[in-house]
Amino acid sequence: MKVLVLNGPNLNRLGKREPHIYGYETLQDVEQRLHDIAGEKATIICKQSNHEGQLVDWLHEAADEQYTGIIINPAAYTHTSIALHDAIAGIDVPVIEVHISNVHKREAFRHHSYLAPACLGQIVGLGTFGYELALRTFLEKGETSC
Amino acid sequence: MKVLVLNGPNLNRLGKREPHIYGYETLQDVEQRLHDIAGEKATIICKQSNHEGQLVDWLHEAADEQYTGIIINPAAYTHTSIALHDAIAGIDVPVIEVHISNVHKREAFRHHSYLAPACLGQIVGLGTFGYELALRTFLEKGETSC
Amino acid sequence: MKVLVLNGPNLNRLGKREPHIYGYETLQDVEQRLHDIAGEKATIICKQSNHEGQLVDWLHEAADEQYTGIIINPAAYTHTSIALHDAIAGIDVPVIEVHISNVHKREAFRHHSYLAPACLGQIVGLGTFGYELALRTFLEKGETSC
Amino acid sequence: MKVLVLNGPNLNRLGKREPHIYGYETLQDVEQRLHDIAGEKATIICKQSNHEGQLVDWLHEAADEQYTGIIINPAAYTHTSIALHDAIAGIDVPVIEVHISNVHKREAFRHHSYLAPACLGQIVGLGTFGYELALRTFLEKGETSC
Amino acid sequence: MKVLVLNGPNLNRLGKREPHIYGYETLQDVEQRLHDIAGEKATIICKQSNHEGQLVDWLHEAADEQYTGIIINPAAYTHTSIALHDAIAGIDVPVIEVHISNVHKREAFRHHSYLAPACLGQIVGLGTFGYELALRTFLEKGETSC
Amino acid sequence: MKVLVLNGPNLNRLGKREPHIYGYETLQDVEQRLHDIAGEKATIICKQSNHEGQLVDWLHEAADEQYTGIIINPAAYTHTSIALHDAIAGIDVPVIEVHISNVHKREAFRHHSYLAPACLGQIVGLGTFGYELALRTFLEKGETSC
Amino acid sequence: MKVLVLNGPNLNRLGKREPHIYGYETLQDVEQRLHDIAGEKATIICKQSNHEGQLVDWLHEAADEQYTGIIINPAAYTHTSIALHDAIAGIDVPVIEVHISNVHKREAFRHHSYLAPACLGQIVGLGTFGYELALRTFLEKGETSC
Amino acid sequence: MKVLVLNGPNLNRLGKREPHIYGYETLQDVEQRLHDIAGEKATIICKQSNHEGQLVDWLHEAADEQYTGIIINPAAYTHTSIALHDAIAGIDVPVIEVHISNVHKREAFRHHSYLAPACLGQIVGLGTFGYELALRTFLEKGETSC
Amino acid sequence: MKVLVLNGPNLNRLGKREPHIYGYETLQDVEQRLHDIAGEKATIICKQSNHEGQLVDWLHEAADEQYTGIIINPAAYTHTSIALHDAIAGIDVPVIEVHISNVHKREAFRHHSYLAPACLGQIVGLGTFGYELALRTFLEKGETSC
Amino acid sequence: MKVLVLNGPNLNRLGKREPHIYGYETLQDVEQRLHDIAGEKATIICKQSNHEGQLVDWLHEAADEQYTGIIINPAAYTHTSIALHDAIAGIDVPVIEVHISNVHKREAFRHHSYLAPACLGQIVGLGTFGYELALRTFLEKGETSC
Amino acid sequence: MKVLVLNGPNLNRLGKREPHIYGYETLQDVEQRLHDIAGEKATIICKQSNHEGQLVDWLHEAADEQYTGIIINPAAYTHTSIALHDAIAGIDVPVIEVHISNVHKREAFRHHSYLAPACLGQIVGLGTFGYELALRTFLEKGETSC
Amino acid sequence: MKVLVLNGPNLNRLGKREPHIYGYETLQDVEQRLHDIAGEKATIICKQSNHEGQLVDWLHEAADEQYTGIIINPAAYTHTSIALHDAIAGIDVPVIEVHISNVHKREAFRHHSYLAPACLGQIVGLGTFGYELALRTFLEKGETSC
Repeated sequence: MKVLVLNGPNLNRLGKREPHIYGYETLQDVEQRLHDIAGEKATIICKQSNHEGQLVDWLHEAADEQYTGIIINPAAYTHTSIALHDAIAGIDVPVIEVHISNVHKREAFRHHSYLAPACLGQIVGLGTFGYELALRTFLEKGETSC
Repeated sequence: MKVLVLNGPNLNRLGKREPHIYGYETLQDVEQRLHDIAGEKATIICKQSNHEGQLVDWLHEAADEQYTGIIINPAAYTHTSIALHDAIAGIDVPVIEVHISNVHKREAFRHHSYLAPACLGQIVGLGTFGYELALRTFLEKGETSC
Repeated sequence: MKVLVLNGPNLNRLGKREPHIYGYETLQDVEQRLHDIAGEKATIICKQSNHEGQLVDWLHEAADEQYTGIIINPAAYTHTSIALHDAIAGIDVPVIEVHISNVHKREAFRHHSYLAPACLGQIVGLGTFGYELALRTFLEKGETSC
Repeated sequence: MKVLVLNGPNLNRLGKREPHIYGYETLQDVEQRLHDIAGEKATIICKQSNHEGQLVDWLHEAADEQYTGIIINPAAYTHTSIALHDAIAGIDVPVIEVHISNVHKREAFRHHSYLAPACLGQIVGLGTFGYELALRTFLEKGETSC
Repeated sequence: MKVLVLNGPNLNRLGKREPHIYGYETLQDVEQRLHDIAGEKATIICKQSNHEGQLVDWLHEAADEQYTGIIINPAAYTHTSIALHDAIAGIDVPVIEVHISNVHKREAFRHHSYLAPACLGQIVGLGTFGYELALRTFLEKGETSC
Repeated sequence: MKVLVLNGPNLNRLGKREPHIYGYETLQDVEQRLHDIAGEKATIICKQSNHEGQLVDWLHEAADEQYTGIIINPAAYTHTSIALHDAIAGIDVPVIEVHISNVHKREAFRHHSYLAPACLGQIVGLGTFGYELALRTFLEKGETSC
Repeated sequence: MKVLVLNGPNLNRLGKREPHIYGYETLQDVEQRLHDIAGEKATIICKQSNHEGQLVDWLHEAADEQYTGIIINPAAYTHTSIALHDAIAGIDVPVIEVHISNVHKREAFRHHSYLAPACLGQIVGLGTFGYELALRTFLEKGETSC
Repeated sequence: MKVLVLNGPNLNRLGKREPHIYGYETLQDVEQRLHDIAGEKATIICKQSNHEGQLVDWLHEAADEQYTGIIINPAAYTHTSIALHDAIAGIDVPVIEVHISNVHKREAFRHHSYLAPACLGQIVGLGTFGYELALRTFLEKGETSC
Repeated sequence: MKVLVLNGPNLNRLGKREPHIYGYETLQDVEQRLHDIAGEKATIICKQSNHEGQLVDWLHEAADEQYTGIIINPAAYTHTSIALHDAIAGIDVPVIEVHISNVHKREAFRHHSYLAPACLGQIVGLGTFGYELALRTFLEKGETSC
Repeated sequence: MKVLVLNGPNLNRLGKREPHIYGYETLQDVEQRLHDIAGEKATIICKQSNHEGQLVDWLHEAADEQYTGIIINPAAYTHTSIALHDAIAGIDVPVIEVHISNVHKREAFRHHSYLAPACLGQIVGLGTFGYELALRTFLEKGETSC
Repeated sequence: MKVLVLNGPNLNRLGKREPHIYGYETLQDVEQRLHDIAGEKATIICKQSNHEGQLVDWLHEAADEQYTGIIINPAAYTHTSIALHDAIAGIDVPVIEVHISNVHKREAFRHHSYLAPACLGQIVGLGTFGYELALRTFLEKGETSC
Repeated sequence: MKVLVLNGPNLNRLGKREPHIYGYETLQDVEQRLHDIAGEKATIICKQSNHEGQLVDWLHEAADEQYTGIIINPAAYTHTSIALHDAIAGIDVPVIEVHISNVHKREAFRHHSYLAPACLGQIVGLGTFGYELALRTFLEKGETSC
């Protein structure tokens, strides 16, 4: 089983960026925990980009390489990217959208997700633990999760 | 550790109601799985009501009885109840909002949650597995989850 | 044949409440006429509540007891209750929504019905005669009316 | 007693047009049933036009010829015609608006009626049976129906 | 003279709930002060419920029992309940709407009141002293206050 | 000098239709006064139609026949007809829009005019005297009025 | 007969200000023409201010001094002043609102008039000739014009 | 203790202006009652202006002269004046906003107050008795009222 | 093969009307070119009307006479006619909507088309060449074009 | 003559992605057909990118290299990219926007194009044949097409 | 060279009013710095008023006296005054709008400026240094700055 | 002191692109002037990209390399990029947003800036001189400018 973990813009600065909102953990810390949880049951591939087009490219690759699932934290592109919506809608791999903070407590422009209707589901506001829950969904539900 | 599981209007008909959206499992099936997962680590109390006021009353009781966490699927009241928002905002127990279906794929009036800004977080669209993920969050994160 | 007649909030005061809008007939008068019309062809069960949750409960019961049809005047809940929408959408009994007054002549907040898309149809503004027309629809069209 | 039955644009194609929405009956079938119901109690005059101005002209004629009531299915003009609203508001004959399909289940632009505030009432979504109910309202309530 | 004091959802937790917004006084403290002010001039009946339907029921009772006035703090239902609007509009007893906090300083969804147009007036943001001012209005203006 | 006076839907019933809004004068009375005012200085041609397309046709004719000015009371089409806007914008004859009643005191849907941006100007709410003022504008300003 | 002519902000610069919109005539020229037209039939008092409050004060004075009519070009205050609306609504003198340019051809914020619903009527886009038409309305219709 | 009572535009005509809305009392009557109530406990200074800027100036003076409280009926400026909002937000004197009529029963443009979020609270719809209630709040609560 | 070419309101004045927007060609010029292109492969029937109802009638005829395709330039009715939408949706003949000018560069009210969702497609802004492209689509794709 | 054909995000997956919407042809098939049509009359350069910035870069290059025309299917960026609008507006090469599917039949967010006002025109919903029609426009109209 | 510096409502209280937003400097401090910067190169005239009409009057004077430039901080009138917009649009003197705080970080009603489209430009959020930058623009760019 | 100057999409074509809006200067001209102004007091690094992700990357680098300030002209991304907002909000370097043209005079979609609330301030409409003013702010205010 292969699971792709995609992080969008500014998440490379996790731990440095606005820690009162996002906490002090780095993205590397989070990714390490996902590798630990997956153990031998799954290969976890982690990528981050600030470029919308790069994220689209990676979603296409995951489809061509028949991943079991994709975990995506699209960050700011959640609210502005129809290209990511279309990329997800156009592949057969189930996608879970994760947000570290509770976006519904924040600015109004963070309340709407263009990606959500194309995803399997969303985990919001449970900190970086949300990535772990998303991973467990794929580990436990596997191919049948969508 | 005590965890309250609240289900809102029409969820008593889970398994009977629109199974193409909500699946064939009954609410009793879901609750049984939560008891199994909790085992001896936590007491799970499950309640369901079609009455907004009843759900408010139960949230107050959970606060008075110092529950560790509350899992709520507010169903239709998600989109119309400020009373539930205020009840959650007025207690110190962390609350996770769960939706079985991906509400963002459905009618526009299901896209907004009045409760979300008062909750710790949301799990959306992962079927009844979402309740399990919410429970594990409380089991693993305990008192510090909010 | 069994037909359920549900009346929502404030309709218990029909005849007392704003008679320039709703007329001087009481709800009992209306219900009696429906019994007279049904005669031996149908059993008419009439209920009224000011509680949204109670109306949801009764809709569930009507589904479990296999009523032929439901006539509902949801009054104020017409415009605010997604819970009633979901209850109607989740049962197999056809529902006709009745409004005594012409809601489209009144305040803007009365122009939208959350229930209408889940109902078979609507009869609006024909006074309490609307209940009679709804009943005749079930009497004449029976099981095939939806 | 004279009752005018006006049908608006595209209803001349009833039975041919989108039968999954409107059914297989033709407008002639419907009109015949209305004549049968009226019997000797009332003269039924049936007209159909795709021209907004023609419908306005006929409403004026009905006023001048002192009809007891008018049944109108304004079809697409429901949502766009203030001219029809004004024609109805400017005559003393009560008008009942009929829609064959449940417009509230369809595109958002079909949810608003310009005519409704000027009419006595509306019957929506009960198929062509709605015309019959409207006719019975005039037959039974006569002059006093508005 | 009889005056009814109705408190809506979550006000049973006054003093416990978000004291930075609502203060440390309990509802019992407030009610006691109202009894003290009324003295022998008026009987004060105080009720609280988290159930919208219950509040509607009590408004009906107050009408049947010919109260001089009603003081209502509808809390969250202020912004969502047309049923309460209709209950107030349908009785002849004057109603004053009270809000402890200044709702216009808070979330946008608290700025609109469905009840206000049916009430005599509103007292907003003057803390629990608002209840006292409302009571004095009835004590001093009596039957003629509406 | 030739001046065309166009009246839109329902104005053929002026004097009969809602006299509390439009007064008791008939359209013939108004037209006669315009002939009297014009005297020998101008030929006044008066037309009325309930058909949007007919009004468009007449505007085209006025352009081809080189009228000095057009007075139009588009009635309900004011608020719904882009076709009339385009007809006016596409001819070189100046047009003055007249409304008998003060449309800004009436329903919200009467506050917007599609035609106004294509017209020379508007006279609103001065009763049928508005037609006379429009005519005098053409009589006194002639060819140079636009 | 006394008629007050009120001009609002920036109209003191008529002839200097944006002549492609407002023309080259000065306000003095316009006022002179009004005096000429009135002749001995009416006293014309002309005032201009850039101060909203001053215009309110003058409207009050006109009421106290029992003017026959008021002609007002509220300029920018048309679109922002509820105070002027209320001043007009609170006096018994009929008011005609005049705009030199066709405001409906200009920025969207010029399309709405707060004053219009309180006025007798409006004359828009007919240049400074609009003032003359307004004056003739009072001269010819006198006391009965509202 | 000094309390400033500010009245905004058109309130100088209280008693003359639209008495069906505002009653027959004059502003002088109201002010006299406030002096009577204050007696020796407080100095009441009453001012009225139709000029927004003047009201701002007076609010500044009240701050400089350390008034205990300000009662303001901003009338039409309630709905349009950010300058008054800022003046209130920029001083340390608590302000109570009073409206004689129930603004929520009237035109939609009267439902929003720019000043309310900067004020201590609002008293709406209780007639001129609202001024008395506001005064008593300052008399009884004094310095601690904000 | 038969192809119907329908032109809506004001297009009879093509070449005369606003040539800076629509060019100097007449509708006859355009129609002649279409006949030339079709040659013997197709019969081209060209009609123009300023009447919405007439256009609906012609669409019905084209369905009854089994045309291969319809080219429609609905002009102003693009933005206001649900009747044309319904006529197109109710027939089995594919329709291509053509606009001579780029409507998206013009007034906001020209940006929305009621007809587009019922049509096969749209060609916008390519001048009268758009008609030719639409015709070639039918000539080359024939029966299978929808 | 050189023509640039730009395809935006996810179009590299044409034929693989949602074939019920976009068909089974690949982008290579489409491009080959364009080369065949152009033959020796024009050089066709085809590019695709999922990166908004890359598409902007290529538009600039086309301007510097003096292309005759550009055909762009901006896919998801149609609805979100002002950068592409500005790139097109800032070059002198005419651009035709092509959409394979009828975007007006799909989600509301696909109804608005930021690019359209900067383009020469649009071809929508005619499948991949739209690219061919766009190319023929440049082949037949050449330099004069804008 | 003469430069006018206009400050709008509440800025007379700069340094006293909400210093966490506006800082502790007084308006006199700011004006002194501007005099220092201008030195002999320009005469700086500084005025402040809480009256919208007064600001309009001063803008007119600056036009008549041929100032080189105007620096205006319209404060609250930024968001509500079309009169100031028109005054600026009607004079030939370039105007720079200055805001001390970053209005885009504050309440939504501060995000829109009615004046900005009539001004040369805006300097926002750079504290009182913004006035200096505006002055330097006039000093360095002089007559040619607009 | 190091200052980063970032230019967004299409600004590489400054001087070539729409010179009636942006002038004839090239970006290189502007950058050279900034180097001249900075002289030895500051190192100026200038970068331009049409890629949103690239601009995000550069903002992160500036944070890591402890720049004193950033001047950004985000061009089209001003109105669409939450990613840039978040990048600015997540670094400790003060940012000044510059727009060459007065965006408030142009299309409505240019009136809103997603970046502004995260920036120190904005300079709008002062041509390329705006960059110089921004630079001087950093040169004169240095570390303390935010």
